[in-house]
Amino acid sequence: MPRLRLALAQTNPVVGDLAGNSAQIVEAARRAHAAGADLLAAGEMSVTGYPIEDLASRPSFLQASRHAVEVLAETLAAEGLGDLPVVVGHADGPFEPRLLGTSNAPTAIAKNCASVLQGGRVVTTTAKYHLPNYSVFDEYRVFIPGDELLVVRVAGVDVALVICEDLWRDGGPVERVLHADAGLLVVINASPFVRDKDEVRLPLVTRRAVENDTLVAYVNIVGGQDDLVFDGDSVVVDGSGTILARAPQFDEHLLVVDLDPEPATDTELPEGIRRVELDATGAPSDGSAVGQARASSPAVARDVAELPDDREQLWNALVVGTRDYVRKNGFRSVILGLSGGIDSAVCAAVAADAIGADAVYGVSMPSRWSSEHSRSDADDVAERIGVQYSTEPIADLVAPFEEQLHLTGLAAENVQARARALVLMGLSNLHGHLVLTTGNKTELAVGYSTIYGDSVGGFAPIKDVPKTMVWELARWRNANAESIGETAPIPENSITKPPSAELRPDQKDEDSLPPYEVLDGILEGYVTNALGAADVVALGYDADTVAEITRLVDRSEWKRRQGAIGPKISGMAFGRDRRLPITYRPTTV
Amino acid sequence: MPRLRLALAQTNPVVGDLAGNSAQIVEAARRAHAAGADLLAAGEMSVTGYPIEDLASRPSFLQASRHAVEVLAETLAAEGLGDLPVVVGHADGPFEPRLLGTSNAPTAIAKNCASVLQGGRVVTTTAKYHLPNYSVFDEYRVFIPGDELLVVRVAGVDVALVICEDLWRDGGPVERVLHADAGLLVVINASPFVRDKDEVRLPLVTRRAVENDTLVAYVNIVGGQDDLVFDGDSVVVDGSGTILARAPQFDEHLLVVDLDPEPATDTELPEGIRRVELDATGAPSDGSAVGQARASSPAVARDVAELPDDREQLWNALVVGTRDYVRKNGFRSVILGLSGGIDSAVCAAVAADAIGADAVYGVSMPSRWSSEHSRSDADDVAERIGVQYSTEPIADLVAPFEEQLHLTGLAAENVQARARALVLMGLSNLHGHLVLTTGNKTELAVGYSTIYGDSVGGFAPIKDVPKTMVWELARWRNANAESIGETAPIPENSITKPPSAELRPDQKDEDSLPPYEVLDGILEGYVTNALGAADVVALGYDADTVAEITRLVDRSEWKRRQGAIGPKISGMAFGRDRRLPITYRPTTV
Repeated sequence: MPRLRLALAQTNPVVGDLAGNSAQIVEAARRAHAAGADLLAAGEMSVTGYPIEDLASRPSFLQASRHAVEVLAETLAAEGLGDLPVVVGHADGPFEPRLLGTSNAPTAIAKNCASVLQGGRVVTTTAKYHLPNYSVFDEYRVFIPGDELLVVRVAGVDVALVICEDLWRDGGPVERVLHADAGLLVVINASPFVRDKDEVRLPLVTRRAVENDTLVAYVNIVGGQDDLVFDGDSVVVDGSGTILARAPQFDEHLLVVDLDPEPATDTELPEGIRRVELDATGAPSDGSAVGQARASSPAVARDVAELPDDREQLWNALVVGTRDYVRKNGFRSVILGLSGGIDSAVCAAVAADAIGADAVYGVSMPSRWSSEHSRSDADDVAERIGVQYSTEPIADLVAPFEEQLHLTGLAAENVQARARALVLMGLSNLHGHLVLTTGNKTELAVGYSTIYGDSVGGFAPIKDVPKTMVWELARWRNANAESIGETAPIPENSITKPPSAELRPDQKDEDSLPPYEVLDGILEGYVTNALGAADVVALGYDADTVAEITRLVDRSEWKRRQGAIGPKISGMAFGRDRRLPITYRPTTV
Repeated sequence: MPRLRLALAQTNPVVGDLAGNSAQIVEAARRAHAAGADLLAAGEMSVTGYPIEDLASRPSFLQASRHAVEVLAETLAAEGLGDLPVVVGHADGPFEPRLLGTSNAPTAIAKNCASVLQGGRVVTTTAKYHLPNYSVFDEYRVFIPGDELLVVRVAGVDVALVICEDLWRDGGPVERVLHADAGLLVVINASPFVRDKDEVRLPLVTRRAVENDTLVAYVNIVGGQDDLVFDGDSVVVDGSGTILARAPQFDEHLLVVDLDPEPATDTELPEGIRRVELDATGAPSDGSAVGQARASSPAVARDVAELPDDREQLWNALVVGTRDYVRKNGFRSVILGLSGGIDSAVCAAVAADAIGADAVYGVSMPSRWSSEHSRSDADDVAERIGVQYSTEPIADLVAPFEEQLHLTGLAAENVQARARALVLMGLSNLHGHLVLTTGNKTELAVGYSTIYGDSVGGFAPIKDVPKTMVWELARWRNANAESIGETAPIPENSITKPPSAELRPDQKDEDSLPPYEVLDGILEGYVTNALGAADVVALGYDADTVAEITRLVDRSEWKRRQGAIGPKISGMAFGRDRRLPITYRPTTV
């Protein structure tokens, strides 16, 4: 009989929805209890949602969060689940502000906390020690760091409890609490998906387990929150580095696993570490604990999800990000322009996978410059995916502007894209659809789009996907469909034809831009890896091309600032991940 | 004869323009040298511009910054100014990253530095100790904090040198360096304007001087950089709290002042403080220093600028922010819609004050719902200010959309605003004008605007000005004009008539919104002071009204994210100052 049955709740919270998020945890506790778990842990900020950003500076929000955790403890008890210790994540405060100095500046009054609930009350609370303040994270802005570490004794086992970033720092809280002889480390997380993150995260969890010869349980939230997509992928690893359990990526899940941690001893704890003894119902003092319902329950089945391959992970991230933006913001349908090109086809397929094709409205908006294949490819996309489909030619909408304002050149090109925006926004206003904007990361980088035209929309499903990856994802999605006997959603012609904005006769993207393979390579250096132009040239690109592309990237910042959010899937997404001035006069870099 | 003649250079740098920013410092050094100064100090990041944001994560940018400082030192010497010690601010790096842990996250590789240049070289460098990471500041994200303090001995005086935030923290660097018997504290700053900041900043400088019975010299940059407006207001205060010199707010200026600091002694410095001896040309060892040109120059005249009153300060901030956005981004003209209403009238007046009425293009775009007074008031604004003026009726532009899409209700209202946006963007594309968007802070807060309609533009001069303050500024600007015999720019009728979007017959703002006095009061509580709804009600507002307004604020976040930047003048501007999620489901707050 195992010493400890652990349950990890991979929930999908909405920022601010304290009641709804708590209800998810109650449901997980009900199932964990039924499964005979000794301990349940949910993710970082599973009660408040993550990231709460500057809500952490609002005293009333913090009071409400604290209150919600108390109510959750009472609810669990009232539901007959009071014996089960439940670890939840939440914001807490307001505390005395950290370091105001004389500056009168708003500053942190909140802590990022984990609380242990049992017997109808909040038994103990610990706060995150290391606050990430890089990439998309602004935690040093809004949180006060914790100053002590927590070990809870449950079912005869000392369980160390830390929060997300605390796991990542060498010589940090994890090593300290494990040196205090904890038998199990529980890390609660709100860790967003980034391509290849699994190549860093799992090895880290494994390293911590192996180095300390201990069990490590990592529980993460799932779901989209604005530009972030949390991928779950909760995992339990033992001291030999073996994966004992793993939850599916991106899905809500309750992971239950039987563990044999070292029993607790009564060694004195080093300073700065606090031990709290929980009520361990039925736990004999010899450490061979028995959970509430476990005596009568069989050993739990092995639950180790497989991680899908790279393309599928990316596709799923786009789908989840889109679905949750729609759902959590109260929309029921989306609308987008279908040009027959690859970007809008991929966005339509993502949207259909996210909320069902019936709720996706595609609009073909041909102009006088639209090719015959554009119209037929748009028709084909709509039919393959099965979206609601209509056609709104823009010739009669554009002509009055051209005539009244005598528009020529770029102005005449842009007014077409902007007339399309008015069509989509008009239909959105009439019917309540969320407008999706279909620009990809490459376009966004160099400003190859019409602001207030094709950039219009509330969500941008592929804004973090470079053009070359858009093609790859289209091919992957088609192959995936075909492998299970379904219709490939993306017309082959949309994938193979040369990209064109079709805002003037015979226009091709490559008239204005280098080939996309070259362009994406340069952007990988300049944007993703923050190299200077000279360093990008040193990678083997033409100096004039690099100069032109970096110039375009710099001068497009104002457009990007006004762009829709979309799911971050790369290590350097546009948006809060990459903060650069609009007003910028580069001299030598 | 005074012991030390100090010059402070209030320059207006552009982020990234290392050569141009350095040229400003060379010019200041030329004038300071001619005035016989012993020491010149320019502002924080005066070489690189401020804030550089994530440029601090680009190694090539840091290398270029360091190189630019070395070149500046050489240039000063080559110009015959090598004797004069010059303190400049700049980014430096790349250094070994701070705290990477195992996370692979991008993290700080830069320091925010002050260097002392003399004799053609960089004599010494110190780094900012306290890094602000609140409000608009993200310095903990991008900078490594300094770990030692610097005192330079110049002309027989020990001058302590710290950077901006270091001044604000009690018990911080300032107290430590002054306890080391420094005779003068020089603080270099990039401190943006905020309404009433003078009520905090000057008392702080004064308190530091009085508490330590010493001289404090505070030098700040000026000018607009994206949403920030640096106001200069450099000041020198003595140990009795007397202002010895003060530079004008918002203008480039060289402030020269004669000081009698305590002469340096040779006491041992506490650990963590470094003293560097500069070449003090002509400085006798008894401490009665004589500057290079001073022996033959008379005592400098008293230079103490008056701070204008509150309304004038705000107006100037809007003007400088607008002018510098236009100028630094290479525009020569702006275009905006003139509706006859107060917002567009005030924006036109700000723009004309910023870049001259000849470069301001106003467009009246009447619809079928536009009142006669709208047209005549728009004509009147144009004539009073003298802008370039044209009329583009939108009826023929809107009708095809209404007919083809069967637009009604809100959709029909919005298409009018969006047709106007197409007109302005079309004219912008044809002629290269920057489009100004005229929304005020109150509208932005509650989403009372049409996205991709009246929100369209690259810069929003009054985005941080609540509606009630827009009226006050209009009255102030008119009174100011009249007091000097000029035409009042804002028509009285634009100030006094009830505000209306005029998107349907007889529409008034107050049909949809509470009176602006009430609305601005609620927003002051909810937005500026981050109160919860209940706390706003406790201020005396109607609970239903508060519930409705807070709901509108929350659900308009997506629009604000896509809005133009504009000058921050309040303690809580929309934009990077207030970071809140779009996806947010409030339960109880």
